[in-house]
Amino acid sequence: MARGDRPLSPTPRSTPRREKERARSDREELHRILDAALLCHLAVVVDGVPLALPTVFAVDRDGPDEGGTVYVHGSVASRSLTQAPEQELSLTVTVLDGLVLARSGFMHSMNYRTAVVLGEARVVDDPDERMHALDLMVDHMVPGRAATIRRPTRKELAATQVLALSLWEASLKVRTGGPDDEDDDVADNPWGGHIPLYRVAGAPVSDEGSRGPVPDDVRRRAEELGAR
Amino acid sequence: MARGDRPLSPTPRSTPRREKERARSDREELHRILDAALLCHLAVVVDGVPLALPTVFAVDRDGPDEGGTVYVHGSVASRSLTQAPEQELSLTVTVLDGLVLARSGFMHSMNYRTAVVLGEARVVDDPDERMHALDLMVDHMVPGRAATIRRPTRKELAATQVLALSLWEASLKVRTGGPDDEDDDVADNPWGGHIPLYRVAGAPVSDEGSRGPVPDDVRRRAEELGAR
Repeated sequence: MARGDRPLSPTPRSTPRREKERARSDREELHRILDAALLCHLAVVVDGVPLALPTVFAVDRDGPDEGGTVYVHGSVASRSLTQAPEQELSLTVTVLDGLVLARSGFMHSMNYRTAVVLGEARVVDDPDERMHALDLMVDHMVPGRAATIRRPTRKELAATQVLALSLWEASLKVRTGGPDDEDDDVADNPWGGHIPLYRVAGAPVSDEGSRGPVPDDVRRRAEELGAR
Repeated sequence: MARGDRPLSPTPRSTPRREKERARSDREELHRILDAALLCHLAVVVDGVPLALPTVFAVDRDGPDEGGTVYVHGSVASRSLTQAPEQELSLTVTVLDGLVLARSGFMHSMNYRTAVVLGEARVVDDPDERMHALDLMVDHMVPGRAATIRRPTRKELAATQVLALSLWEASLKVRTGGPDDEDDDVADNPWGGHIPLYRVAGAPVSDEGSRGPVPDDVRRRAEELGAR
């Protein structure tokens, strides 16, 4: 079986039992959701309590892990990052697309795309892979930017923990469109629908130390994120 | 001590050890972050694995729990919701405000506002509190809407699990502005700055069963969410 053909949800824990019509099992859909998001929530047990920690991430579809690799990073002093490699954990990406306003509270919902990647985090020790992962995280924010900035120093690298998670196992859910009201409710209440939501970008803001125009890659990225 | 005066981060687990300049300890800031967000991620251990589950939430500042109450809900068949009350858990709200583009990868960051509420979930059994919580969740999406839609049926209520979490203990972090580059890097590289990000709403979309105009509360909410 080619790598890309592996089932995305090979075990019961990643196979949705409820709302199956929202489930997706397509690796390309996983990558579309990961591409659309700018931050993830890393779910990790820290000192006995599960936390959902917002953090930057990046994907390498051809990374060394089965199914490709998702990287996160943080301070070596972070409790969450140091405890993460000792446990099964997960990483969630959620894109909110709208508010679904039904004719009953029960049918109110949100339009969203969410991917939950499950697995064991691997500490990235190899210097080349670490550098590659850090570049990918900058490029996930602004494609091409890593090549235009100063390289990490030895001291910065020593202060940074990089974790990798395999994209082998993930659970996807996608909801789109208007409410799923009961016929009786539609007859009784004249309006139902949804409010679409978008993430948009403003124009790049140069800092006080800047001397010269906004770089092309930054300008392009803001335009791309600003377009609905 | 009045309720509102209780310290927000009374224990070490909710007291940031790192990046202290980003920490906030103000209950009003907690409520501003909760008000600004439309969904939260509930961090809960399900079958041994920590998950960050995106879900609707609502706040009752005068709720029955210390510091006020945050409510979430879901299906009684949901593994996450049924396992949640048996453990310490947390609920994270994150609002992403921008991409911080520094002159080194190390100083790249995001502008964000995040609140992590820590505690033990309480199953809401009282019928009045359940109904109140469900109304609050609709009203968190569109203020005033709960009063305009069909009330929950006995069957719908039986299918719904409502959980409450005290707002007593929370950890807040807020980052704003441009990069914190080293002077040498500013001298070497002419540009640094940030790309502001916003969540905006499109015009409400009426579904096929709708007969008549978009209700005023929905129209107002879309306008409010659409304004930067």
